Amino acid sequence: MTMSAIDILLKPRSIAVIGASADATKTAGRPVAYLQKHGYAGAIYPVNPRADTVGGLPCYPDIDALPEVPDVALVLLAPERAIDAVAALSRRGTAATIVLASGFGEVGELGVRRQQALKAAAGDMRLLGPNTIGLVNLTDRIMLCASGALEMEALQGGSIAVVSQSGGILGSLLSRAAASGLGFSKLVSTGNEADLDVADFIDSLADDAETRVIAVYMEGLRNPDKFRRAALKAAQAGKPLVIYKVGRSEAGARSAASHTGALAGADQVYDALFHQVGAIRAKTFADLLDIPAALATRRTLRGKRIAILTSTGGAGTLVADSLGVAGFETPAPGPDTAAKLRELQQNDQIVLDRNPIDVTLAGLQPQLLRDTIATLLASPDYDGVITVVGSSALAHPTLAAGAIADSLAQSDKPVLAYVSPHAPAVLAHINRGGAPAFTAPESFASVLTALHARATRDIAADAGPAEAASPVNLQGLPLPSGSLNETQARALFGRFGIPSVRECVVTDAAQGQDEAGSFDGPVVVKVLSSRITHKTEAGGVAVGVAPDAIGEAITAMDARVRARTGIEPEGFLLQEMAQGVEMIVGMHRDPQLGPVLLLGLGGVTAELFKDTALRLLPVDHPTVRDMIRSLKAWPLLDGYRGRPKADVQALEDAVLRFAAMAQQLGERLMDAEINPLFVLEEGRGVRAADGVTILK
Amino acid sequence: MTMSAIDILLKPRSIAVIGASADATKTAGRPVAYLQKHGYAGAIYPVNPRADTVGGLPCYPDIDALPEVPDVALVLLAPERAIDAVAALSRRGTAATIVLASGFGEVGELGVRRQQALKAAAGDMRLLGPNTIGLVNLTDRIMLCASGALEMEALQGGSIAVVSQSGGILGSLLSRAAASGLGFSKLVSTGNEADLDVADFIDSLADDAETRVIAVYMEGLRNPDKFRRAALKAAQAGKPLVIYKVGRSEAGARSAASHTGALAGADQVYDALFHQVGAIRAKTFADLLDIPAALATRRTLRGKRIAILTSTGGAGTLVADSLGVAGFETPAPGPDTAAKLRELQQNDQIVLDRNPIDVTLAGLQPQLLRDTIATLLASPDYDGVITVVGSSALAHPTLAAGAIADSLAQSDKPVLAYVSPHAPAVLAHINRGGAPAFTAPESFASVLTALHARATRDIAADAGPAEAASPVNLQGLPLPSGSLNETQARALFGRFGIPSVRECVVTDAAQGQDEAGSFDGPVVVKVLSSRITHKTEAGGVAVGVAPDAIGEAITAMDARVRARTGIEPEGFLLQEMAQGVEMIVGMHRDPQLGPVLLLGLGGVTAELFKDTALRLLPVDHPTVRDMIRSLKAWPLLDGYRGRPKADVQALEDAVLRFAAMAQQLGERLMDAEINPLFVLEEGRGVRAADGVTILK
Repeated sequence: MTMSAIDILLKPRSIAVIGASADATKTAGRPVAYLQKHGYAGAIYPVNPRADTVGGLPCYPDIDALPEVPDVALVLLAPERAIDAVAALSRRGTAATIVLASGFGEVGELGVRRQQALKAAAGDMRLLGPNTIGLVNLTDRIMLCASGALEMEALQGGSIAVVSQSGGILGSLLSRAAASGLGFSKLVSTGNEADLDVADFIDSLADDAETRVIAVYMEGLRNPDKFRRAALKAAQAGKPLVIYKVGRSEAGARSAASHTGALAGADQVYDALFHQVGAIRAKTFADLLDIPAALATRRTLRGKRIAILTSTGGAGTLVADSLGVAGFETPAPGPDTAAKLRELQQNDQIVLDRNPIDVTLAGLQPQLLRDTIATLLASPDYDGVITVVGSSALAHPTLAAGAIADSLAQSDKPVLAYVSPHAPAVLAHINRGGAPAFTAPESFASVLTALHARATRDIAADAGPAEAASPVNLQGLPLPSGSLNETQARALFGRFGIPSVRECVVTDAAQGQDEAGSFDGPVVVKVLSSRITHKTEAGGVAVGVAPDAIGEAITAMDARVRARTGIEPEGFLLQEMAQGVEMIVGMHRDPQLGPVLLLGLGGVTAELFKDTALRLLPVDHPTVRDMIRSLKAWPLLDGYRGRPKADVQALEDAVLRFAAMAQQLGERLMDAEINPLFVLEEGRGVRAADGVTILK
Repeated sequence: MTMSAIDILLKPRSIAVIGASADATKTAGRPVAYLQKHGYAGAIYPVNPRADTVGGLPCYPDIDALPEVPDVALVLLAPERAIDAVAALSRRGTAATIVLASGFGEVGELGVRRQQALKAAAGDMRLLGPNTIGLVNLTDRIMLCASGALEMEALQGGSIAVVSQSGGILGSLLSRAAASGLGFSKLVSTGNEADLDVADFIDSLADDAETRVIAVYMEGLRNPDKFRRAALKAAQAGKPLVIYKVGRSEAGARSAASHTGALAGADQVYDALFHQVGAIRAKTFADLLDIPAALATRRTLRGKRIAILTSTGGAGTLVADSLGVAGFETPAPGPDTAAKLRELQQNDQIVLDRNPIDVTLAGLQPQLLRDTIATLLASPDYDGVITVVGSSALAHPTLAAGAIADSLAQSDKPVLAYVSPHAPAVLAHINRGGAPAFTAPESFASVLTALHARATRDIAADAGPAEAASPVNLQGLPLPSGSLNETQARALFGRFGIPSVRECVVTDAAQGQDEAGSFDGPVVVKVLSSRITHKTEAGGVAVGVAPDAIGEAITAMDARVRARTGIEPEGFLLQEMAQGVEMIVGMHRDPQLGPVLLLGLGGVTAELFKDTALRLLPVDHPTVRDMIRSLKAWPLLDGYRGRPKADVQALEDAVLRFAAMAQQLGERLMDAEINPLFVLEEGRGVRAADGVTILK
């Protein structure tokens, strides 16, 4: 009954506050005070053996003395006593309990043991926390929360929900939003997530009628699969997820074994996950409020042409410049629109050959401003309108807000405002009127990008279930634990239908020279060893060797490799030199998020230019198509500057086959990589020219 | 006497306000009101034939009636009348005049003619504007300005100067800074820059004792050389320039003639200019205040290890994460520092194995907070300290500010603060106390990067005068106007000491086949034509042609090029295939900023990966060294992954020789490019394998 316990937690009919203090200035005094102050209508039961009343309510000496089983309890006690209280609440049948105390899993071994005891004490009862600031339900005015931000008087309801893995961030968002005139539906701080986690609340909020957008502050996921399901549910319910995730600078799991491991850093894999569930990643902390504010309007940005209406030149230019960097257009009004604007302004001198559209008078006359915005919204020249509010607004704080709010009903195009001077009252006015207003010019690029993505593509999963591939017969292939050598690895890839370059294996220089006749052009000579994965560094690759110099090249390589690595080569590989675009295809097992597929521009410089696309497995055909086309190197495959087109179809097939291989080998496969995979001219297929496979 | 007129403009003993209105609520009424309100001590002479007094001062009917020659005049009249006033002021000998009216150069041809007339009317008198909001001297409380931002009561003085090409931006910065507790020395809006421009004021502020940092809002430079001189003067005076420049999304001068033209976009050339004069480019509009606020403290960030002191987990993590992305470190305290912190907190349980350093108690006890900051500042583990202010500060707004301010005297390391909740009073308190405080976690990455650059490198020009090279004898070289063909271009480069690949020119397939014997490996066949600069797209390049297939390749190429371009080849080039790193070296003439040098990873994909460095010419040897090492591709030259090192010394020489060629050819040279320039193994030099030269 997970769902119903969370529902009760978000909207309890009765609340016990364990450890409530009669002193409202203490942290333990806040929750009862906040519940009362913000108008909670249900029963509140303070529990404290050393108080008779708290906030005018009768106080109970212990949990067993409560007159009824509370729907929800808020435990304010220190760790050890909190564990006892949770056990008592669970015994009485409380649906869910919030534990605020820190000193659990976040503080080392002792804390980890305490957290296990807490979880055990809860039994079937659901837990929020520990180490949480609690939750706030603004829809129903229920404050199960100790954040000092609740000292504020009027907290505005709204349609943005917040799920935060930090309580301090919840408080920060609450006070910043209030100052900007933005409101929330629910805010939850999940803390240590001993039981309920960020995914549980996303899942619940996807069903919440008051919530239109879910903003998430994330430090890391404990259960990626559950998150993925919850995120997809939110997407299907039409509720975008906007996520600010820290941990961007973590080195991630650096694997010495492959380029893929080095390129698939922990944070890049989160990016792939968010992309695949249609979540928007907030790049700045401000984006975490700005983007939800714009999405919550549910207005539709069908194109990229934005009118900027300004009465102060520089500020409009700031916004236009930021938009331009993000790929938006700010075209001058077309003749019809210009004619209408000129008529409104009753001014033949007005210059209408540019955008920002400078209408000095409209900044001071409400009806003129209203009509001007209406004209721009109605114009087929524009997909959205930004009104710039200049310093003159300081003297007329409600003028622009009123005109902007009045324009909203006439169109479903986005209407936004930039407040150029420091004018917090003006900002809050406009936001409360329903048009998102911002003080940073960069905000517009972020929010319009999000609105445009939403309007032009369903925010939903692009990775469906794996395509049902019949398993490939692997009989007879040597698949020992550890690294396969290159030839073994490519033999494995070959079983899945990925062809290799023409090659032969020789044991020494003499045998190598004997093979000279079987190549009609220069060859690549490579050392063969399951112990050497980076052959180039080991001196184990020679490119463009003339057939009659093969023996000589092997003799030199043998000596070089032994000297550099101390490893005795298993043999040497002679390969034809393929002509084509060199790609890298790899699979890496992220320790947190699981197997991930990498595609990029390959060769020895793969890690230098980092032109890659990542997706969590499984992937489908459209995902692979999208990966290929997202690369900077895509033009190289697509007939760049008069070159022949490469066999993109064969590349797509090879990537899907590689993914199917990863699926079939499952947990045994730790890392796999083809680098380079040569993509030949259209119709000629691909050739794997090197391979890494590491099995468990 | 340029300097003295600007000095007078910034600090006049008497001011005439032409067109002053007696109604202080009108724009024309503001300047006299603002002068009086903010305490101007000199003489104010309102001029208006329709008023007897303005702001209690006697009003004069016209300029000729003024009782003395005013030092400075502020003209509030509409364009045509402003021109007459300027003429009258010039006749009387006024040193400098500010013209506020718009309707000049920014509004088309009529306006351009008006602006010419205005300039002519001014004669020897210096002009600020037109289309300016004026200037503010906060050091001396002189407001020659009509911005509504001056309605504010207490405007704080400070050591940041602002020079803005937009008046609206000046007002925006003024009100935003006031709200944050930041003060300015001088603010100037240069408007249309009919006379005085942004460089004139940078030059003047470099000498201003009250100014430590100069913040610039820039739309474009009218006189780049003057700017360069002024910026270098400011750098030599130890006054950093922080510049926010719009126009980032402009396509720039797209030249069809070379990769260099396409890669040296207008905005990238500004980047190069700023880099060369040691100016810091603000990436966001917030940076334009944040970075100066930090630089104005003149504190020294010697390393990259930052202590983050927090009483609220999530907010500290936000800051640490942003710093990590920017390359800063947040190491846990070493044993000695941890022991001192533990002693202060009198708490054996405190967890000190991490950073952000969580000291919950210190958030509420001033002396403890003071001692903790002092301990971190004194610690050899850290180069700077950031204190996070959480929601508890809402109840104690001055606690953190006091403790932070008290710590400043103990060290010259930077001390900064992050204010997590919306708490503008706390923010202003801390800023006024002398520690820069910010509300965006991203601000710390920007400001610490600037502080670190300043501490570790003198902000000064890296491009000295061109090295004195004796001119090269160009006699006998064909240097017609227009494009040279590839062979002519490389012959020119050869005169300057840049060698080419071994090659020969043939006229047709038969002659080509005859040359087969002179090559001992595969060759490159290229079409030769001064009319075809992008040979690859024209089908005019064949790589890896076996010597016995040269004739065949030429026949096919001849047909292909004619079919694709309709151009008859001048001949064909046979070149040895060089082995090395392919670079591009180019010169492009930017229409605004002049000749620019480009170096990058070359070959056909140069424009795809855009791995380039740009500098304005002239350049010196250290600049070229720096350019090479700034490339992503630098490791490829430096022995990447066991490869042989490339001849970097020869590359440096070639680039300097290329630059010397551009200097010697001067204005005649429109575009020049070597792509690819092969950099061979160490000691083997470089080889130009293609060339473009366009002469005027």
